[in-house]
Amino acid sequence: MTTQEKPTSRDRLLEAAATLAYREGVGIGVEALCKAAGVSKRSMYQLFESKDDLLAASLERQAESYAASLLPATGDGRSPRERILYVFEQVESQSGRPEFRGCPYLAVQIELKDRDHPASRVAHRIKSSLTAFFRTEAEQGGASDPDLLARQLSLVFDGASARAGIGADRLTGLVEPTVGSLLDAAGVR
Amino acid sequence: MTTQEKPTSRDRLLEAAATLAYREGVGIGVEALCKAAGVSKRSMYQLFESKDDLLAASLERQAESYAASLLPATGDGRSPRERILYVFEQVESQSGRPEFRGCPYLAVQIELKDRDHPASRVAHRIKSSLTAFFRTEAEQGGASDPDLLARQLSLVFDGASARAGIGADRLTGLVEPTVGSLLDAAGVR
Repeated sequence: MTTQEKPTSRDRLLEAAATLAYREGVGIGVEALCKAAGVSKRSMYQLFESKDDLLAASLERQAESYAASLLPATGDGRSPRERILYVFEQVESQSGRPEFRGCPYLAVQIELKDRDHPASRVAHRIKSSLTAFFRTEAEQGGASDPDLLARQLSLVFDGASARAGIGADRLTGLVEPTVGSLLDAAGVR
Repeated sequence: MTTQEKPTSRDRLLEAAATLAYREGVGIGVEALCKAAGVSKRSMYQLFESKDDLLAASLERQAESYAASLLPATGDGRSPRERILYVFEQVESQSGRPEFRGCPYLAVQIELKDRDHPASRVAHRIKSSLTAFFRTEAEQGGASDPDLLARQLSLVFDGASARAGIGADRLTGLVEPTVGSLLDAAGVR
């Protein structure tokens, strides 16, 4: 979309679903979604089968910018250890913003409590790609057990963003030494 | 309550709120809660100011059994390292049950997205007592930085229960080596 084009009803609904679900939860009503998007319910149901499908599509649409906000550029000259730490630096930095509520894909799955929900499936897939990134870097970095390290880093990622999202902890002075110890234990120098 | 006594309306409401909120989320309606408890809405509102207060009271009521399901007995002869690992063994074991949805106190805070909600405040306080347990054991175990270790263990606890709760990972072969590496790094042998 160029700056000249006006966002379509579809764009506005996807944006409203992403924003409101993140801020208020997946229980957000169709009325509120349509009002925020400035779209009639009739139009919404012409564009999406259901609110569930709209929610799933909104998560899918955010996936690229989410990855771009966390992952280092391919072949940026950083070592695997630095590339892994880079992701956690981004989370630490993002978690300082007042609107931060943790990882949207983790929250959606916790809220829906239904692994077969279309939005849970999308969220699950997107989060798996983060684990795959960790797995690749772990292997490149010579980790003694790349699968284990990728699972550990995913666990720390979710624990850190969840705790910062609910205000149980700040991530300063916490994430970097935690990830550092796990990288050390795996032999990724 | 002895086995002879029938549960009161209050007991049944607290039980229904705990069960339904864990299984379906905090968005569960008053109708469904009252139906599950076999209590009229009129009675519910005589016993609790609001659904929010009922939810907060149900979390409070579970706190003791929750702690008992996770923490080792006081003075059980285990070392601080063993006492910390004990907590994670319990989570690993609990996460294998089909009804497991992660830590109820984390989920409630993620779902409510409102730190001032009475249920969020109760959940926050109960989770702080787990961090305090880790802090005490870390200090007893001679951790180089007991505050940091307690924060790290809380982070791993939440990451592990969240990921197992949504089915992103099983905890087998994951939590024990993760906690072990952090205890090693802190010098808790």
